[in-house]
Amino acid sequence: MLYSKLFGKTSKTMPSDEEAINSQLLIRAGFAHKVMSGVWSYLPLGLRVFEKIKDIVREEINAVGGQEILMSALQSKELWDETGRWESLKEIMFQFEGRGGAWLGLSTTHEEPVVDIARAKISSYKDLPFALYQIQDKFRNEPRAKSGLLRGREFSMKDLYSFHATKEDLDGYYEKVKEAYLRIFKRCGLEAMVVEASGGVFSKEHSHEFQVLVETGEDTIFYCEKNVRRPGLPGRPGLDTKCDFAQNKEIAEVYAGDKCPKCGRKVLIGKAIEVGNIFKLGTKYSKPMNLKFMSKDGKEQAVIMGCYGLGPSRILGAIVEVWHDDKGIIWPEEVSPCCVHLLDLSKDDKSNVRKAAKKVCEILEKAEWEVLWDDRLDVSAGEKFADADLIGIPLRILVSEKTLAKDSVELKYRQSGKAEIVKIKDLIKKLS
Amino acid sequence: MLYSKLFGKTSKTMPSDEEAINSQLLIRAGFAHKVMSGVWSYLPLGLRVFEKIKDIVREEINAVGGQEILMSALQSKELWDETGRWESLKEIMFQFEGRGGAWLGLSTTHEEPVVDIARAKISSYKDLPFALYQIQDKFRNEPRAKSGLLRGREFSMKDLYSFHATKEDLDGYYEKVKEAYLRIFKRCGLEAMVVEASGGVFSKEHSHEFQVLVETGEDTIFYCEKNVRRPGLPGRPGLDTKCDFAQNKEIAEVYAGDKCPKCGRKVLIGKAIEVGNIFKLGTKYSKPMNLKFMSKDGKEQAVIMGCYGLGPSRILGAIVEVWHDDKGIIWPEEVSPCCVHLLDLSKDDKSNVRKAAKKVCEILEKAEWEVLWDDRLDVSAGEKFADADLIGIPLRILVSEKTLAKDSVELKYRQSGKAEIVKIKDLIKKLS
Repeated sequence: MLYSKLFGKTSKTMPSDEEAINSQLLIRAGFAHKVMSGVWSYLPLGLRVFEKIKDIVREEINAVGGQEILMSALQSKELWDETGRWESLKEIMFQFEGRGGAWLGLSTTHEEPVVDIARAKISSYKDLPFALYQIQDKFRNEPRAKSGLLRGREFSMKDLYSFHATKEDLDGYYEKVKEAYLRIFKRCGLEAMVVEASGGVFSKEHSHEFQVLVETGEDTIFYCEKNVRRPGLPGRPGLDTKCDFAQNKEIAEVYAGDKCPKCGRKVLIGKAIEVGNIFKLGTKYSKPMNLKFMSKDGKEQAVIMGCYGLGPSRILGAIVEVWHDDKGIIWPEEVSPCCVHLLDLSKDDKSNVRKAAKKVCEILEKAEWEVLWDDRLDVSAGEKFADADLIGIPLRILVSEKTLAKDSVELKYRQSGKAEIVKIKDLIKKLS
Repeated sequence: MLYSKLFGKTSKTMPSDEEAINSQLLIRAGFAHKVMSGVWSYLPLGLRVFEKIKDIVREEINAVGGQEILMSALQSKELWDETGRWESLKEIMFQFEGRGGAWLGLSTTHEEPVVDIARAKISSYKDLPFALYQIQDKFRNEPRAKSGLLRGREFSMKDLYSFHATKEDLDGYYEKVKEAYLRIFKRCGLEAMVVEASGGVFSKEHSHEFQVLVETGEDTIFYCEKNVRRPGLPGRPGLDTKCDFAQNKEIAEVYAGDKCPKCGRKVLIGKAIEVGNIFKLGTKYSKPMNLKFMSKDGKEQAVIMGCYGLGPSRILGAIVEVWHDDKGIIWPEEVSPCCVHLLDLSKDDKSNVRKAAKKVCEILEKAEWEVLWDDRLDVSAGEKFADADLIGIPLRILVSEKTLAKDSVELKYRQSGKAEIVKIKDLIKKLS
């Protein structure tokens, strides 16, 4: 990809009305455009990251047997009246009258629609268990959303719903999804903690949240000091995860400094970002909506459900909150818009440096490395370096007269800042 | 993929309130679920087709230099007031008041938002030309939508916007996109005609529509008899495309039976489905929204724009309208949910037929053929055959005691109905 042709270049000025680090950096680096408070558009580089996050989510949810579907944003009042949530979600659900007089809403979640689909298709214990998910846009009528991509009026969600004949079956699946979630966050570069929380408007049972410790987070949690690892942060060697105690402030029975009720170590307090949550719904939606099945012994029973949410756009924002420095973003490898940021310091399209950069680009692309090549001729070296730091691709490869004198390129790693000289002929071997 | 585990099996009953062929078949075959009039959810098989259509669109639009972005559905009144379209689109745009008092709308199109992005990023002739597109959901406040996936209140759109310094540059790009569109429709199994039409609410210039001839279409067009080919429809050998004359009824200067003003052959009339449209916008949006650039000779000028729409969900519906018979859907190869529908007539999980089917499935999947294996044991052969016909995967492979006696399977082609016996060891060679 040629940077000269890419739409959405970096900008030097800091957006004045943005308080959140994620939105400041995503705007400045050319990843996102603010439509209005809590509403964002993705530019080409931002969309690449977004799609990579969604692909990771798909892989891991498919691996636990999730079947992907796609439900609508528009909702009918009649359907949501079946559970009483047309009224109870009134504050956060956009609701309006369509032509023809029917009341419509925009989805904030999809329990009602997914139960409506399930009841049209299943009838017997033989149809259970199954799990359906989608990656789709949700809407929330927030009066003011100011945390960049962390809290939107329009935002992306992966919502998974599981359907079971027994509570035991749900319990087993719930644990599987918990593990899948931890794999998703890890692959996205986030070390998430599993935190006990209330069910909120969705459920009366305790639920679990996945929280990422970061100073700018909206949530407060209490957690055992042994329940945290932060690999990759220099000077903070992680403890082994041996105690998983963590509670959201809303339901916490402990306070910072207390002894962990599970292992006796110290309880810590932290402002955190919630990146996912999982609930055991039981029959909360299946009963009022009449989602039943005929059991093996011929009895009609309500289907037992679980639901599992996770926000790709929020994950994107959280990654930037965790992975940045004063120069810009530091993308974790698997979600970086490209693998390599190639720089050449040519001022002339016919120079040897230019030719060598072209060759390096070809070598990399042939080996299926995604390259962002800053091929601009009218920009200073300093500006190119600063842009590379701001954009935050993990590996920078520099071609200059100095490196070419040794038939080499310079590799520089965005995270560690370390650099090394590598012969062009050894490049692919070195990288793989 | 095991059919026994797949969510969204076929149903025997015809939905009583559906008039359109596409929705009747998509519901019965387990591809789609109706949320309400004009609003649909996609089940696993339907989503696979939908994603394949979107991938084809992406490939062809990327090939003409389109850069993918993703804009929001929520829109602010302020932005659309800049062009006066908050008022003029009032009838079809969902508009409502959010908490905090601001008026919000749901996008029916994205000229205003994309111009807002462009004006934040470009300033010089050096930044031109470029083209941005997205595949995103649009909303229309239709009082009653009754054509299945052809006309939705919520529907998917690929919308591409191009930005140019000169009219000539736009003209050249417009022709490129026209060709890309024809490639897209062809790969989707649709033979689309390029039809002159009015600009509608979007533009005062003439535009071009892409129309697929099918009896159930909503549009009426007049076209030269030489401007049509229908490959694959038995008994209708296509004429060579040598005259491209076609006009939408709305602007037509001819009538059926007239001489084609371009070539003198006969003009025909046809009810058609519009699957795409392209417009030269000129400075219609860039002028009121102040999207300018500094030209080579230092003059400030308004950017010249084109816009190009195409509906993946509508294409899906159109494919079914064109490609079906009284038994069910007949998917064109590139958009079929799977390549092969594998059937075995086992009643017992340990039978030789079952083992052979498993082996065939492994052979196919190893060769990267996507297989839908109807592995149900409690279903009759007749029911399996009928389901395969209804679902409409192009190739059916049958394993039975009879075929196994010859170490073979039966291949049957959904479109032609022809069958042949092939040795299992020769299967991959035969298919490739």
